[in-house]
Amino acid sequence: MTKQEALDTLYEKIFAIRSLNMANALIHWDASTSGVPEKSLPARGAAMGWISGEGFRRFIAPDTLECIETLEGMADDLDSNERVMVSEYGQKYRKFMAIPPKEFQEFSALTAQAEPIWEKARENNDFDMMLPYYEKIFDYQRRLCDWYGYEKNPYDALLDDYEKGANVEKLDGFFNALREKLSPLLKDIIKAGKQPQEITGLFDIAKQRELMPWLADFVGYDRSRGKVGEVEHPFCTTINRHDVRITTKYHGDNLLSALYSTVHESGHAVYEQNMDENLAIYGLDECASMGMHESQSRLYENIVGRSRAFTGLLLPKLKDLFDYFSDWDEEMLYKAANVARPSLIRIEADELTYSLHIMVRYELEKGLINGEIKVADLPELWADKYEELLGVRPGNHAEGVLQDVHWSGGAVGYFPSYAIGTAYGAQMVSTMKKSMDIDAVISSGDLSPITGWLKENIHLKGLTLSPDEILKLATGESFNPNYYIDYLVEKFTGIYCRT
Amino acid sequence: MTKQEALDTLYEKIFAIRSLNMANALIHWDASTSGVPEKSLPARGAAMGWISGEGFRRFIAPDTLECIETLEGMADDLDSNERVMVSEYGQKYRKFMAIPPKEFQEFSALTAQAEPIWEKARENNDFDMMLPYYEKIFDYQRRLCDWYGYEKNPYDALLDDYEKGANVEKLDGFFNALREKLSPLLKDIIKAGKQPQEITGLFDIAKQRELMPWLADFVGYDRSRGKVGEVEHPFCTTINRHDVRITTKYHGDNLLSALYSTVHESGHAVYEQNMDENLAIYGLDECASMGMHESQSRLYENIVGRSRAFTGLLLPKLKDLFDYFSDWDEEMLYKAANVARPSLIRIEADELTYSLHIMVRYELEKGLINGEIKVADLPELWADKYEELLGVRPGNHAEGVLQDVHWSGGAVGYFPSYAIGTAYGAQMVSTMKKSMDIDAVISSGDLSPITGWLKENIHLKGLTLSPDEILKLATGESFNPNYYIDYLVEKFTGIYCRT
Repeated sequence: MTKQEALDTLYEKIFAIRSLNMANALIHWDASTSGVPEKSLPARGAAMGWISGEGFRRFIAPDTLECIETLEGMADDLDSNERVMVSEYGQKYRKFMAIPPKEFQEFSALTAQAEPIWEKARENNDFDMMLPYYEKIFDYQRRLCDWYGYEKNPYDALLDDYEKGANVEKLDGFFNALREKLSPLLKDIIKAGKQPQEITGLFDIAKQRELMPWLADFVGYDRSRGKVGEVEHPFCTTINRHDVRITTKYHGDNLLSALYSTVHESGHAVYEQNMDENLAIYGLDECASMGMHESQSRLYENIVGRSRAFTGLLLPKLKDLFDYFSDWDEEMLYKAANVARPSLIRIEADELTYSLHIMVRYELEKGLINGEIKVADLPELWADKYEELLGVRPGNHAEGVLQDVHWSGGAVGYFPSYAIGTAYGAQMVSTMKKSMDIDAVISSGDLSPITGWLKENIHLKGLTLSPDEILKLATGESFNPNYYIDYLVEKFTGIYCRT
Repeated sequence: MTKQEALDTLYEKIFAIRSLNMANALIHWDASTSGVPEKSLPARGAAMGWISGEGFRRFIAPDTLECIETLEGMADDLDSNERVMVSEYGQKYRKFMAIPPKEFQEFSALTAQAEPIWEKARENNDFDMMLPYYEKIFDYQRRLCDWYGYEKNPYDALLDDYEKGANVEKLDGFFNALREKLSPLLKDIIKAGKQPQEITGLFDIAKQRELMPWLADFVGYDRSRGKVGEVEHPFCTTINRHDVRITTKYHGDNLLSALYSTVHESGHAVYEQNMDENLAIYGLDECASMGMHESQSRLYENIVGRSRAFTGLLLPKLKDLFDYFSDWDEEMLYKAANVARPSLIRIEADELTYSLHIMVRYELEKGLINGEIKVADLPELWADKYEELLGVRPGNHAEGVLQDVHWSGGAVGYFPSYAIGTAYGAQMVSTMKKSMDIDAVISSGDLSPITGWLKENIHLKGLTLSPDEILKLATGESFNPNYYIDYLVEKFTGIYCRT
């Protein structure tokens, strides 16, 4: 096999897999934005299963390894994109090959069953319904760590799979620092017992919708290269580089929900829209990691969107639409957008406490993978951790251990990337501040200096470098959670403890 | 290869091809109902090209022929569905094999590009914009005739592809009979110079929309097993047997347009929804032909929907919604729904002149495929034919040669099936009349005797028989266009020449 043959075979596979993925992304979009006829579910599921299975079959076909080995043998003749493609696909391929095929098949069938069961279990507040599934899922994940291999802690194998370079040693450090700095602050806030005025009442959804284009444009999401939909659970999905779609869910009784969800999904979408198209043939126009993706969405949502400067822009818009705000001033809106308090549901958590929700899951996953925790004890331990870290205790499983879909889908080791990503964003902004006045940029209403910095330093690079390599080039140092912790402490001390 | 191995391999291929087709149908639905970001067109076209190409590649893989030949060699051991599957796929295979795969894929990509260009060209009244696309498309179609093969006329190869058994000889006969009988009638109508009162003015689109569910339900379209969309050019598309979708385009100044378009697309959808699910594994739960599909849509639209009996049901609904109709009686509405006059736009043509519009396209396609006409001369020749057959001449390309999407999508030889299908429908209804009082059924508001007859005699059979075999079983004779011509002459003589 010549170099060109090997490259062409890989390019072809990548294109095939992407076309199939695009098909499933659209099938998912179609269902999420306009529903699915119930009787069509079996046929639809079978077709989607065939489509994703086909991408997978192409990837694991023996000629994939042949191409990879051929190209590894001539690494000096490859350009940098070719080299990264071979390395990325080689790692993925060998990881997959380490899994006994029968085990993989059984696990795929198991998670396909477990997701709908989880929905029911959550509805019925019935942990026992999920218990046998979670036991098998975590059992498989423990064996997966052995198949993948690890240096120190088995859980490292899973963490690294979602966030290259992440491991227990680093994350223990990160979360311990969080606990150390945030816990006293949170206690002070609770003790002070004074919360800012919140936004309450009902807000016309048609009027809420009018804000959406402005918010998306403000972030830099190019609406002419995508679509906007309304769904039950908002997401961002990429059909191709020039068709990146975002979704929103409007709540009449929660004005800020759709507003910040739009900013969040627009942050994801800007990352996707700004990737270098020339990386497509190598399959490298993808996010560097899930954490890096979250860094973008959460940077726009929180560091930009919940800043004092942004609420100055937002208030006049709200006043135009809703009489409710006639007596509000910018400072009130800023505080209302940053209400921090212990809570039970991760996806509704505020900026300050969000990472503590992640910490609960991190510690439980670590214990489960290391065999220190039994699945049957999860509900109790979950509640204990919430009480310990957040000072609140779930009254039922739906607002406790059954609230997230991730484990039923087999995603163990994914949660930490939300927190890591959030911290990446703070590190990026701290670097930006050396060359620009961030608040002035936000106040101007034109985020292009910020989005331009992100495009150049993060978006364009796609998957050509690891998250840590990208961070190092962009900020001059490896991942350092202190920027994030300092940012949170300063912001929330300002809001809660200086008045 | 054993019989079972050959069958299983074919079933697997059929399932793969259907999953891929479903993906492309959804990509098309997505674009039609909510648009496509312009910059995404190349990537979208490439992915759609890969998807349809992949179905094609699976079909033409050597093991398909091996399976077909194996099963052909043991025809006596096959049940009837297996036998038809082998015969259908054998014929298709040998046709497909005649097309060079690279040409097929390039053509798929070409038409994916050409469709949106056609929209613009029509908007801008710019035939030159489409000229290079049409040239490539007709050039491919001419070569396609050679690849497929034909006995007498190259165009026969394309005609037979859409309507098994159709050829220039039969269609020349059909269209000549039409011209002979309808031309004098049309001249009489024009000469008489008296037209019934028409529906004019603007009709609120929100109110028009309220009619849609009633119309769809009346036809028997099961809205719980599909979706309804609004598009520029209405169509019906099947995602799977329990997800059959219809579309409508509302015109404020043309109340009957969306109304009859909904009935038409519901007629297509009923056919799709009623097919026998057990035929799916054989890939035989498909229409017997495009003409058979049109027979269903046009039977509901015209023979049922524009009957005196239906206007009796419709008028009270219209009176409820629109004050405009307060002075109207059923006879006035019946005549207004059957205004016949020469016109320029096929999709707006009345029941009487419709087939003359098809005749224009039939004669032009025949000339183009036989090399007697150049694509560059189409606009002029189109206008000449309209003047000759209908006595009207288009003032621009949008109301002339650029009005139809078909050619930009690569469908050449498709138009005649509209006229043939319409004539099938008249033949079916003439048989139904022997066992039921059609007008009484329509007046009752419950079409189930008609839809039941169609389900049993047409829909359930899917692709297990040829159109002519189905007609023979259902009506006792082969295709006979006289039922259609007699029906038209009687109906329109009644409306225009007996008052």
